[in-house]
Amino acid sequence: MRALTVVPGERDSLEVSELPEPEPGPGDLLVDGIAVGVCGTDKDIVAGEYGEAPGTGHRLVLGHESLGRVRQAPTGSGFRPGDLVAGVVRRPDPEPCGACAHGEFDMCRNGRYTERGIKGHHGYASERWTVDADYAVRVDDELGELGVLVEPASVVAKAWEQIDRIGARSWFEPARVLVTGAGPIGLLAALLATQRAGADLDVHVLDQVTDGPKPELVTGLGATYHHRGLDDVADRIRPDVIVEATGAGPVVLDAMRRNAACGIVCLTGVSSGGRRFEIDAGALNRAIVLENDVVFGSVNANLRHYRLATEALAKADPAWLAGVITRRVPLAEAATAFTTRRDDVKVVLTLSDQPS
Amino acid sequence: MRALTVVPGERDSLEVSELPEPEPGPGDLLVDGIAVGVCGTDKDIVAGEYGEAPGTGHRLVLGHESLGRVRQAPTGSGFRPGDLVAGVVRRPDPEPCGACAHGEFDMCRNGRYTERGIKGHHGYASERWTVDADYAVRVDDELGELGVLVEPASVVAKAWEQIDRIGARSWFEPARVLVTGAGPIGLLAALLATQRAGADLDVHVLDQVTDGPKPELVTGLGATYHHRGLDDVADRIRPDVIVEATGAGPVVLDAMRRNAACGIVCLTGVSSGGRRFEIDAGALNRAIVLENDVVFGSVNANLRHYRLATEALAKADPAWLAGVITRRVPLAEAATAFTTRRDDVKVVLTLSDQPS
Repeated sequence: MRALTVVPGERDSLEVSELPEPEPGPGDLLVDGIAVGVCGTDKDIVAGEYGEAPGTGHRLVLGHESLGRVRQAPTGSGFRPGDLVAGVVRRPDPEPCGACAHGEFDMCRNGRYTERGIKGHHGYASERWTVDADYAVRVDDELGELGVLVEPASVVAKAWEQIDRIGARSWFEPARVLVTGAGPIGLLAALLATQRAGADLDVHVLDQVTDGPKPELVTGLGATYHHRGLDDVADRIRPDVIVEATGAGPVVLDAMRRNAACGIVCLTGVSSGGRRFEIDAGALNRAIVLENDVVFGSVNANLRHYRLATEALAKADPAWLAGVITRRVPLAEAATAFTTRRDDVKVVLTLSDQPS
Repeated sequence: MRALTVVPGERDSLEVSELPEPEPGPGDLLVDGIAVGVCGTDKDIVAGEYGEAPGTGHRLVLGHESLGRVRQAPTGSGFRPGDLVAGVVRRPDPEPCGACAHGEFDMCRNGRYTERGIKGHHGYASERWTVDADYAVRVDDELGELGVLVEPASVVAKAWEQIDRIGARSWFEPARVLVTGAGPIGLLAALLATQRAGADLDVHVLDQVTDGPKPELVTGLGATYHHRGLDDVADRIRPDVIVEATGAGPVVLDAMRRNAACGIVCLTGVSSGGRRFEIDAGALNRAIVLENDVVFGSVNANLRHYRLATEALAKADPAWLAGVITRRVPLAEAATAFTTRRDDVKVVLTLSDQPS
């Protein structure tokens, strides 16, 4: 069967490899791959800047935003052939830290986790794959191909859960939310903001572009789209919550400075760093202290968040979700998926010629 | 009666003024002032950089770290003449924000609070003062003069409460704590770290000095004193929690960068700002995101924290607490209290010739 592989650390090593059919172990599902989503981490791996092959191997099967259809399932696994399924990315170390031992491997303390398609564990970008049924989540059949958004939605579900849990440290009734960056994470963060139970959140999304699909995707949620500077927008709306999804240094610093009192800034973007900026660190500290502000980072997701993600996607307007997937690339032309095009939001690699 | 006053915004306006005896309103205690502690905020006000007089007046009575003895108490107030008492600093606006309406005026959202001795409300640096019994806390009589530490201890009790509440967002069993800055806030933060129920925390305190009272105060708690750079210390101990109490820009940035995975950095120092540093904001963001780190600011305290503070002080070794108060200045010589001396930890203004 075909799989998309790279040699981690080696630029231009991307290829569609012919690999043996995977053999499901006890407790594993055997799955026909439908699609994998492509994100910044995949691009970093393809650029040779990130990633780790499993064991003593040199090649890593890419792909961590998965969607497939169960071909074979062990009895008692809770899955049946034909089920749509997404696999979880991270696995705890066999000798888990305290967080991993409590199922919170997304909050791993010792860094000895593996991640499918990223770190020490083959990914899901193959025509067939296996997954431990305990690390698989069923995807509503009506979602079809849109189920490939489960993994990015799980990252956002975790971010919102953490915002709520941190917010619960004191009175917390956020009125205004600003999302910086209208990529898939930013858009899904805005989607989940509009779905919050009992809340009538005023949702704003900021990005640089003035055309392409992003402004309409934002207004399609009933949210407000902005393309001016964060300083200007944040000073006007004074967001109680900022979900930062660009990873860009100056935006991150502005987000830390320009939220409301007792504001929560959730950082989700992973930037490469390397650019230096002058800041008045004392003034930044003073603003955070005197306003009781919180800034926190959120990465990855555990099973609880995958389940929240499937619920959130099932509640969303399928036409809106379909608009987030702006490009579909067949496996044979995979390389083109890793070069960013102007109107890309979520690019998806299709792994099967069968309709999902 | 005598009171220590300034004209906010006017340098060199500090004076011991003769004011009319205060008239307790309904529900107020009338209190004989024993002492007020002096902190950085008081120095900023005396320097003309901060503070706001009440109403249309020009002068502000200083003092927010209070201790006094009740002279007169309304029936049913829960207080009796002779009780040792500390007054709370902050008061919510008559039209409170959501947090203030829930008694969490330390987390005020709209900034329309007043603060005794700081912002729009006279302080406690007078021979007699009044306080609404609902904003007073009884201090264990055995603490005596050490009760002047209730207010700074309340700030630290809030900081630890917030660390615990934020930590509860996921598995949280901190093993190592680093406190940066061995001033009163840092030392009291270390004290409360050693008092944590069921925890066997490894407590470290970092400051610049190699002599004076600070190293011994730290080791007196069973904690470890460091005077090397934060980068070196933090890289060796990888603290799960950092309580930052210097407010110095470079220390704040190092604290954000050098904690353990899922670390919590609590910023408590208020720096004046004005110095600019070059930082790689993208790399800082990346470190916070990939490690699920939290950085938050903590200021002020509500009634719950004052009560926690009085409990913490009552449990502490009185000889150790006495070591934190390194200088006592009588009201008549008040000006000398606002000039920092080499071995100062907590400087206290005494308001009465009576033994406390």
